[in-house]
Amino acid sequence: MSNQVINIQFPDGQQQVFTKGITLTEIAQTISPALRKKAIAGSANGTIIDLTRPIVEDTQIALYDASSKEGINVIRHSTAHLLAQAVKRLYPDARFGIGPVIDNGFYYDIDLAHPLVPADLLQIEKMMKKIVQENSSVMRREVTRKEAQQLFAHDALKLELLADIPEHEKVTVYEQGEFYDLCRGPHVPSTGKLQHFKLMHVSGAYWRGDSRNQMLQRIYGVAFASKVELAQYFVFLEEAEKRNHRKLGKELELFMFSEEAPGMPFYLANGQIIRNELESYLRQLQAKYDYHEVRTPLMMNQRLWEQSGHWDHYKDNMYFTHVDDQSFALKPMNCPGHMLIFKNDLHSYRDLPIRMAEFGQVHRHEFSGALNGLLRVRTFCQDDAHIFATPQQIEKEIALALKIIDEVYQVFGFQYDIELSTRPADFMGDLELWDQAEKALENVLNHLGLPFTINEGDGAFYGPKIDIHIKDAIHRSHQCATVQLDFQLPEKFDLTYINEQNEKVRPVVIHRAVFGSIDRFLGILIEHFGGVFPTWLAPKQVQIIGVADQHQEYVQQVVKALQQEKIRVGIDNRSEKLGKKIREAQMKKIPYILVLGDREKDQQYVTIRKYGEQSLHEMSLLQFMDNIKKEIEQKAIL
Amino acid sequence: MSNQVINIQFPDGQQQVFTKGITLTEIAQTISPALRKKAIAGSANGTIIDLTRPIVEDTQIALYDASSKEGINVIRHSTAHLLAQAVKRLYPDARFGIGPVIDNGFYYDIDLAHPLVPADLLQIEKMMKKIVQENSSVMRREVTRKEAQQLFAHDALKLELLADIPEHEKVTVYEQGEFYDLCRGPHVPSTGKLQHFKLMHVSGAYWRGDSRNQMLQRIYGVAFASKVELAQYFVFLEEAEKRNHRKLGKELELFMFSEEAPGMPFYLANGQIIRNELESYLRQLQAKYDYHEVRTPLMMNQRLWEQSGHWDHYKDNMYFTHVDDQSFALKPMNCPGHMLIFKNDLHSYRDLPIRMAEFGQVHRHEFSGALNGLLRVRTFCQDDAHIFATPQQIEKEIALALKIIDEVYQVFGFQYDIELSTRPADFMGDLELWDQAEKALENVLNHLGLPFTINEGDGAFYGPKIDIHIKDAIHRSHQCATVQLDFQLPEKFDLTYINEQNEKVRPVVIHRAVFGSIDRFLGILIEHFGGVFPTWLAPKQVQIIGVADQHQEYVQQVVKALQQEKIRVGIDNRSEKLGKKIREAQMKKIPYILVLGDREKDQQYVTIRKYGEQSLHEMSLLQFMDNIKKEIEQKAIL
Repeated sequence: MSNQVINIQFPDGQQQVFTKGITLTEIAQTISPALRKKAIAGSANGTIIDLTRPIVEDTQIALYDASSKEGINVIRHSTAHLLAQAVKRLYPDARFGIGPVIDNGFYYDIDLAHPLVPADLLQIEKMMKKIVQENSSVMRREVTRKEAQQLFAHDALKLELLADIPEHEKVTVYEQGEFYDLCRGPHVPSTGKLQHFKLMHVSGAYWRGDSRNQMLQRIYGVAFASKVELAQYFVFLEEAEKRNHRKLGKELELFMFSEEAPGMPFYLANGQIIRNELESYLRQLQAKYDYHEVRTPLMMNQRLWEQSGHWDHYKDNMYFTHVDDQSFALKPMNCPGHMLIFKNDLHSYRDLPIRMAEFGQVHRHEFSGALNGLLRVRTFCQDDAHIFATPQQIEKEIALALKIIDEVYQVFGFQYDIELSTRPADFMGDLELWDQAEKALENVLNHLGLPFTINEGDGAFYGPKIDIHIKDAIHRSHQCATVQLDFQLPEKFDLTYINEQNEKVRPVVIHRAVFGSIDRFLGILIEHFGGVFPTWLAPKQVQIIGVADQHQEYVQQVVKALQQEKIRVGIDNRSEKLGKKIREAQMKKIPYILVLGDREKDQQYVTIRKYGEQSLHEMSLLQFMDNIKKEIEQKAIL
Repeated sequence: MSNQVINIQFPDGQQQVFTKGITLTEIAQTISPALRKKAIAGSANGTIIDLTRPIVEDTQIALYDASSKEGINVIRHSTAHLLAQAVKRLYPDARFGIGPVIDNGFYYDIDLAHPLVPADLLQIEKMMKKIVQENSSVMRREVTRKEAQQLFAHDALKLELLADIPEHEKVTVYEQGEFYDLCRGPHVPSTGKLQHFKLMHVSGAYWRGDSRNQMLQRIYGVAFASKVELAQYFVFLEEAEKRNHRKLGKELELFMFSEEAPGMPFYLANGQIIRNELESYLRQLQAKYDYHEVRTPLMMNQRLWEQSGHWDHYKDNMYFTHVDDQSFALKPMNCPGHMLIFKNDLHSYRDLPIRMAEFGQVHRHEFSGALNGLLRVRTFCQDDAHIFATPQQIEKEIALALKIIDEVYQVFGFQYDIELSTRPADFMGDLELWDQAEKALENVLNHLGLPFTINEGDGAFYGPKIDIHIKDAIHRSHQCATVQLDFQLPEKFDLTYINEQNEKVRPVVIHRAVFGSIDRFLGILIEHFGGVFPTWLAPKQVQIIGVADQHQEYVQQVVKALQQEKIRVGIDNRSEKLGKKIREAQMKKIPYILVLGDREKDQQYVTIRKYGEQSLHEMSLLQFMDNIKKEIEQKAIL
């Protein structure tokens, strides 16, 4: 083959000969003008590249349009450059930090004296659209370090980034119109490709995330493949905002925060009812599966945390106090306490497995900027358990843990994905045990017929693990449950049991959580249900409204009957209009409103307005009680 | 009347004339030689005095024998002197600190180089009995300070005590045989009166309880009015030791302690079951009476504790940590958190009363020497509640709180005494409000027909209170429940509600606890029941023993049937003899043992051995389930 031609292989395996130096744009054009128009970026032997990059050797290629993950990421990255160009036109003194792709969009950190306000973002967006109209070509240029230093001589932040590029790596600059940026790329071929974006908000961000550095202004934006997707995203945001657990937490009087204890929730009466229901439900389920609940102190001597290894890994996130002149730590985890309980007694193989559970309140420091309602707190209650087992029991115990997790998540209507994380590079312990354990985890998942993905090398240093990601009602993913094997803690605490051969050997420890953090899980539930809790969780389950004063006797009779069955019931006997009372009960998202008047009283009936339904039902009081008791018993979702 | 005679008035009001300077012994003799013999001490115009003290003016007198509180206290005090005399005979270099009366006896602190061991106590006791035989007269002598300084020139500790006697007070010395002691008295007339005593043990004690001072040896002894009472006391001690909650806690695997967290209990599975039952019972009861449970953080900013006044009063018993460079305290009480919740909202008189309850884990430092199992810990869970009420609601709310306390204590079979503590000297707040509040508390107790004693001036500085002292099965008294009015916290937190006249006014706060500390209450319950818990609390309620292997199927059937009804059931299917299995289940104090063999299986019967009963019963499985369910439901005491 002449050295002026190269062999190009397409994703379907077909091959074709092209002139050396041809670009992906040109190849796309040979297939169809429509394909060229749709293409955003491509890949050469698995590496994403610009469409305009000349190809000079035999290569496997692929082309990506905006609907692919690769394509949309390039669009988002290029939109960040577009943002920077617009800012620079409007504020010539602006200097730039980094501008990476994030979920749904991008941000760019900007060093600018003028404090940006929302109105400024509109102006910037207008300028971005103008640059899109200009449809400038986006050009990649390889430069020497010296050239780059000259180009960015007045950009202190870029010079820092330049200095960080490894010696062996090429330095590249991307240009569009009058704007250029230090960047690895790739990018869209021209600014005209950037259509469906929106700037969201601006916030402060320390340069390199370090509070000792200068504060920059970070502009967040989103970008999508199509107008429809962009619109859908705003619908999603609106829905998410409606469900925002901090907003609903206030409206439904579930919890509060105080500046006297930042990041530490105060549960109000309504929120505490839900917490208690969650705890009590899991407590019963665990008792059924022979988990034994314990309760360990909230603080223990620092030397214990040194022994467990938490001091090495977590000390910066732990709170310390002094007891009798010794340093004590508030527990960030329950494990060491459970190890002490196991060690308190001698154990034989006949005692195993021991399934030790605790609703343990832990404290972990978080930066105040990272706090987020119940989703990111400084203290939370873990539904923790440690299973002490023989190596032979691992599979059965993992299976049981997964069964409980499945049972719980079904109750809330959560779909979930499973990830198996395997041996990391810095693993500790015996290779053979690792292999056996990973195999055991895989076997369990296969036997149970549960689909899972493998996160190669993403296990904890102490053992492989299974993480469960639930999907909420608006398709957001949350990692809650986890099942982790641990070969290290038994070593560190010198745990033993006597096996059938009368030898002292090590048990395996399995860490397990279902809710993870009850606090965070409650936050997720609030958003998942949009505050409309299933009846078994609803703080108030029934609101009773008498039509007039003469019905108060019947109201009291119904209240008493319901309370006898431990149904949480409220009465609205204010002298307000019936309509207003009903509206307000609906605002509180109470599952059932009973309206009681003459007819209801005479027939021992109730007229029911179920939350979310327009029409009214009527039935006998006994029938209603029967129905709602069943609904609560079955933990039905409304 | 001649100035050589005086008028003596007896407790029954009768009067008689005696020669001036007569002693109580002589007066007793005139009534009857038996009375003289029994008399231990007397009183003159209400002041306890020696029988040998001459009476020189018209006086109201009384005589006390050993069966009176006054008499036995004098005996105990004199036995302490007897102890000191014996020690001095055996160890002439001994010097003495203080030797006061305590519950059931006395102690004396001794400065002595020789470390006393139990065998020494026996020798000392022997010497005490010898001195009793000697029947030395005990003589009171008034001395000048100078004389006293000479008498105790070689007793540094006594010189210190001498220096502490107020200027206006007489200095007295008591002598018996070769021994004399600096003492206010009074004492028995002669050592022969001291008969029913026993030395118990010796321990270390800092001079004046201050760890910067020298360590003395403290000998404890007991003394009673009669041989029978002394013997009864040792029976009581034996019974108390059998019931010792630390011992039972270990045997029944209820809780443990670790040196990694001194004073902070670890609840094992069995103990946690009881805790959960206690909590769940009170939770239900509180819900019934419209108490609303909340949950507040375990630590809050130091400034909050300064605001609440806890910092002033408790800071030496609080644990501190740092959050974002600010000092935070682990809560020693739940009050401030509840005040923040109240303040989180606006309130109208229509919202009151608000009854806010929490099972709040608090931390309070105690000296390691003071720790005592679950009875004295460094962290415990309070069943706390704060009632926010209008002044008009005080009576009704106190009555409700007392009703709940009564309901709970009846469940455990506790008798109790009530004490009303009134305005102390250092009271804060409005005098009129105090009067109104004390009247309210008294009214409530009177309306409820509850007998109570008044502790004049023993209220908290922030308000009057009602303390409840329960009596356990072996007649020991424990203060658990409390109901306290508080006028200060509403001021300190500027709490307000809008009254019917649309004015902002202060609510009253009522602090209330039923168990007090769940941990301590559990400790008391263990001793009260001697580990034999009522079935509803028993960690394992039923133990099932199959006679042979072929009965395992029926065993499983019975287990399933019981578990379905949430009865906590265990199986003993080891290959051990039936008798051994039954004995071991009884050691664990399991309320019911079911023995299942051929006959039981064929007839669907169970053979029952109830704890503490010798005879066996048999009945159908269904009947047994019905019975035990009722027993649990009714919280019956075995």
